[in-house]
Amino acid sequence: MARVYNFSAGPSMLPEAVLRRAADEMLDYGGSGQSVMEMSHRSKEYGEIIGGCEALLRSTMGIPDNYKVLFLQGGASSQFAMVPLNLRKGGKADFVLTGQWAKKAHSEAKKFLCANVVADSSDKTFSYIPKLDPQKFDPDADYFHICYNNTIYGTRFHALPDTGKVPLVADMSSCILSEPVDVSRFGVIYAGAQKNMGPAGLTVVIIREDLIGNADESVPTMFNYKTHADNDSMYNTPPTYAIYICKLVLEWLRDEMGGLSGMKAQNERKAGMFYDYLDSSALFKGTVDKADRSLMNIPFVTGDEELDKKFVKEAAAAGFVNLKGHRSVGGMRASIYNAMPVEGVIKLIEFMKEFERQNG
Amino acid sequence: MARVYNFSAGPSMLPEAVLRRAADEMLDYGGSGQSVMEMSHRSKEYGEIIGGCEALLRSTMGIPDNYKVLFLQGGASSQFAMVPLNLRKGGKADFVLTGQWAKKAHSEAKKFLCANVVADSSDKTFSYIPKLDPQKFDPDADYFHICYNNTIYGTRFHALPDTGKVPLVADMSSCILSEPVDVSRFGVIYAGAQKNMGPAGLTVVIIREDLIGNADESVPTMFNYKTHADNDSMYNTPPTYAIYICKLVLEWLRDEMGGLSGMKAQNERKAGMFYDYLDSSALFKGTVDKADRSLMNIPFVTGDEELDKKFVKEAAAAGFVNLKGHRSVGGMRASIYNAMPVEGVIKLIEFMKEFERQNG
Ligand SMILES: Cc1ncc(COP(=O)(O)O)c(C=O)c1O
Ligand SMILES: Cc1ncc(COP(=O)(O)O)c(C=O)c1O
Ligand SMILES: [Mg+2]
Ligand SMILES: [Mg+2]
Ligand SMILES: [Mg+2]
Ligand SMILES: [Mg+2]
Repeated sequence: MARVYNFSAGPSMLPEAVLRRAADEMLDYGGSGQSVMEMSHRSKEYGEIIGGCEALLRSTMGIPDNYKVLFLQGGASSQFAMVPLNLRKGGKADFVLTGQWAKKAHSEAKKFLCANVVADSSDKTFSYIPKLDPQKFDPDADYFHICYNNTIYGTRFHALPDTGKVPLVADMSSCILSEPVDVSRFGVIYAGAQKNMGPAGLTVVIIREDLIGNADESVPTMFNYKTHADNDSMYNTPPTYAIYICKLVLEWLRDEMGGLSGMKAQNERKAGMFYDYLDSSALFKGTVDKADRSLMNIPFVTGDEELDKKFVKEAAAAGFVNLKGHRSVGGMRASIYNAMPVEGVIKLIEFMKEFERQNG
Repeated sequence: MARVYNFSAGPSMLPEAVLRRAADEMLDYGGSGQSVMEMSHRSKEYGEIIGGCEALLRSTMGIPDNYKVLFLQGGASSQFAMVPLNLRKGGKADFVLTGQWAKKAHSEAKKFLCANVVADSSDKTFSYIPKLDPQKFDPDADYFHICYNNTIYGTRFHALPDTGKVPLVADMSSCILSEPVDVSRFGVIYAGAQKNMGPAGLTVVIIREDLIGNADESVPTMFNYKTHADNDSMYNTPPTYAIYICKLVLEWLRDEMGGLSGMKAQNERKAGMFYDYLDSSALFKGTVDKADRSLMNIPFVTGDEELDKKFVKEAAAAGFVNLKGHRSVGGMRASIYNAMPVEGVIKLIEFMKEFERQNG
């Protein structure tokens, strides 16, 4: 079969150029006579790969020198525990509940500290980002947690809360590398790699140095950021191949996409076209407040469940796969991460127009 | 460069047939129009991959029905904490210290329970497996931990301790799939995949069902075996590509190697040739007690550090890479995992003979 347009929420599409390169190098990376998968993580060759990946991530995101970059395992879900276990001091933290992942971060933190809810948009199925009242922020909190982009519901923060001295912690699993961010505004940024960075099995943590080293003795060694910071993510065997693919993705981002500003322009173009069509369509409509729309995940519905099903099925047959919405929202969701080509969005819109003509 | 013979302790060689298949399928797995790396872990296609991997592992190892197979992240190092956090009840466990990894499992467990040392071979740089005195086994221990094969020192257990009702827990990172084992003798078997199973970033846990579900509330959700057992390793995004490669390795083991009994025969042949040569050589000698020799990791020395260095360097130039021994043993180490072809060992021995002729 020809390559499909894959609108999965993650794992999702990777740039075709990256996959071709990985296939080419599978039996022999750079004349080493080995696959990257076979390389000792302590070898010189591999040291260049992981070091190169970190350097590229630093330059791409403009990560200040007083931040560490950690390449970990365990998914963003492990960060839901690692953040409180490493950042707790006073024993309380603030949370904004903007979706299922934000809620999971909150429930997990409750195991380890007093986790306060500053705002919550569950009343309308998380279809908006709640207004934040700074009066409700605890100035003594160990951290303030947000989920920057809500994968399931298709909302995102357009402005960051001003948390003063309280470290802002952001789950950026579904928006990292989609546009420039000012890293210095955050205490911790974390992301599962499987949307915009590479394959599943790699979790990237960007953390301000002063937040490392405060975990107490009861924290498992592998859940202590200091373990990984002190060993350049080589305390134990890192997910070597996933890091290599992440490096190829970062090279593609730099060389083909014009870095994060170029990427942002393309992402705005893709999402803009899609939202414009949804807004003009009589059949399809977006499910979230316009002001809070995500650049990456676009949920939409026809309003008729049977028609939604028909659409998802016919779209898949036409090579637009994984458009079924999350069960908590229903309908459809198009995740259009960095690697989704512009043509993929154009062709999906054409397909939707034709579907509307026939079923509208 | 031509493919090299890679004697790394892990990550290490993968079967060339597996790498070719992975390269072939990189842009389009089985007509799906996607790379396995791009597949939603919730998709039907991926469900067949992870389900197929588990079924193959079960049939290959003869895993009884009352055992769960978990595909996790975090490396064997995370198991050093997960085992005590999940198995503690009375709050004590027995350990045999046979090397650095066994010691790490012991030190980590000390964070969570009373970790007793039943025997220890550190007096002779872990060059033997200590005799075990069953009188010293605690009949009320929550578990009894061994490192089945000691990657760094090149020893292995040839007989299992009889721990009665106390669950035997084995770190099999560097020997899993190298020969048949009677899984029913164990409470928990765990292994980082990066030696005999696939790429780094996947950890396999095989656990008797009654040992699941005892972790207390303070255990991070991702460190609770029950989380993963209840969700067929899909609580969060699993390391999808590493699991796919593991499935390809298991297919190779079944179709090309004759399963675990065929694999054992080939491993005994490879290690046998190597040890025979070491024993007959006037220049090279093995560093461990003959009765405790590993099938997988063979440390050896010339007795002259300069000559060791010369050997490692010339061997690398001749296409035999990663033969440098671990710093705690010195000299050389040849890790000859399942994927090391018989020819690799034959050619290395020829090279050593020639080196001996010139330098002996
Ligand atoms: C925003 C967000 N956070 C966390 C997660 C969970 O990530 P993981 O599966 O890597 O644990 C996801 C997964 O989709 C996500 O989208
Ligand atoms: C026997 C043994 N246990 C544990 C480990 C650590 O594994 P990981 O790096 O996956 O944490 C190793 C790594 O070489 C090993 O050989
Ligand atoms: Mg969400
Ligand atoms: Mg509309
Ligand atoms: Mg060892
Ligand atoms: Mg000898």
